[in-house]
Amino acid sequence: MDAPSRTIRLGLIQMACSPDPNENLEKALWRIREAAARGANLVCLPELFRTQYFCRREDPDLFALAEPVPGPTTETLGRLARDLRITLVAPVFERRAPGLYHNSAALILPDGSLAGLYRKMHIPHDPLYFEKYYFAPGDAGFPVFATPAGPVAVLICWDQWFPEAARLAALAGALLILYPTAIGWHPAEKEADGLAQLDAWLTVQRAHAIANGVFVAAVNRTGREGPPGADLDFWGSSFLADPFGRILAQAPTSEEATLVVDCDPTLVEHTRRHWPFLRDRRTDAYGRLLERWIAP
Amino acid sequence: MDAPSRTIRLGLIQMACSPDPNENLEKALWRIREAAARGANLVCLPELFRTQYFCRREDPDLFALAEPVPGPTTETLGRLARDLRITLVAPVFERRAPGLYHNSAALILPDGSLAGLYRKMHIPHDPLYFEKYYFAPGDAGFPVFATPAGPVAVLICWDQWFPEAARLAALAGALLILYPTAIGWHPAEKEADGLAQLDAWLTVQRAHAIANGVFVAAVNRTGREGPPGADLDFWGSSFLADPFGRILAQAPTSEEATLVVDCDPTLVEHTRRHWPFLRDRRTDAYGRLLERWIAP
Repeated sequence: MDAPSRTIRLGLIQMACSPDPNENLEKALWRIREAAARGANLVCLPELFRTQYFCRREDPDLFALAEPVPGPTTETLGRLARDLRITLVAPVFERRAPGLYHNSAALILPDGSLAGLYRKMHIPHDPLYFEKYYFAPGDAGFPVFATPAGPVAVLICWDQWFPEAARLAALAGALLILYPTAIGWHPAEKEADGLAQLDAWLTVQRAHAIANGVFVAAVNRTGREGPPGADLDFWGSSFLADPFGRILAQAPTSEEATLVVDCDPTLVEHTRRHWPFLRDRRTDAYGRLLERWIAP
Repeated sequence: MDAPSRTIRLGLIQMACSPDPNENLEKALWRIREAAARGANLVCLPELFRTQYFCRREDPDLFALAEPVPGPTTETLGRLARDLRITLVAPVFERRAPGLYHNSAALILPDGSLAGLYRKMHIPHDPLYFEKYYFAPGDAGFPVFATPAGPVAVLICWDQWFPEAARLAALAGALLILYPTAIGWHPAEKEADGLAQLDAWLTVQRAHAIANGVFVAAVNRTGREGPPGADLDFWGSSFLADPFGRILAQAPTSEEATLVVDCDPTLVEHTRRHWPFLRDRRTDAYGRLLERWIAP
């Protein structure tokens, strides 16, 4: 029998982001310290937390916000991780090469070293979310990172709508899937569809937890960004769901919050023994999932 | 531009099943007539509706309950479909050959003909749900059936926990996925986990609707079957969710019900235009979904 993994005490930093990248980094640093003081051993920041969500418009000058990995953000957070002896998930607007940028997240271990990088695989492009302009799609699949608290996958925002990504993370051994996120209400849609959008977002991620028997957490930003009429109202609601899809903790929609909550790793196997979906997958019959469309 | 599909007026028959197969067929017949009288043009019955849920125990004599397709059940229902000019989904304990049985569902067209057969692909086997003893797994994948109301997929019960099945049905063109079902509370689990189980069941299916932009309906049985201590308390709760995951109609847990509710096919494309997941699937990166496990 394997030794059980340690309990993950997960810290989720829901924050509002200002136009000043240094201010956002400062806020992230003190909120991480706050989470660590409450015992968190794995802390996750929201997608692109150094900046406001610049993808609201397409502007070549905004590529100047990108930075390499390793780079200033991961080095600063690496020092903090080492000070606090915790694992950090640090989303970065990554400059991989001149003219080649990714929406990424670095995994930083308690010794301050970089365990690896996830580069967002599914890239949205919709009104006020013009991400295909900025980000090349990831080319390294869905890695799972060994951490002192057990194997963890990091996916990013739009990935959360794709059951394939969550499944691949679970098959690669993740006990917990983290989704750094930047999602909010479009001004033209909030009144009619706002609650249904938020509910769909929660539902699809809780379903990943259920279908795979893993913990799932989303870490969103909050606050309003952009000029009236072209603004996004980020809906917060960062949460942790257990492998049965039950929400163990959730932040409000419109306030900053630091959630600190435990993931008992024994619950993964307990849940999968009772509802043994991994036993019954029809791997012989899934070949056409690799196609775009299969209707005649 | 394609001609729009006709509105599906869907009838979902939630029923309790007696030990007498003829009584169950009689009940199904009058409930189908009831649904048709309310305008339903596509009516779905629960999984294995001719019998009580015999898989609560393993007994070779129970194979005598099986019948061929075409056979008595599909012939009777074919006549009714022709009388009423509606499409029917008829779950059958199918005897395909001596010693070869499936948990199947026949799709019957308004002219009474058999459009096709779905044979359950994912077979459970858990306390009081001993299905691997009775049913060979389906070997014909996840077909989509052309009906006068548009393309429809039929999956069965345990299939509903597998995002792969719903995805393949959607990629094959289904606008609506129907899940004839027999799921209930195990007596040892209801008090502690009953509500969470029902909620997980709803959540994972609503997520299929959301992730794929399709209508999803489940048609469950209700009532208690079996001797105390080895009984199942079927939880009803048959429902239709729209492509945004919103529940449009739902039956109670412990009463029979005939739901008749419209599916507007234009909502499929509307939803997919706003949240274009099919555009962004990473079909180049999903190859390892065909493996059982990929952790090192």
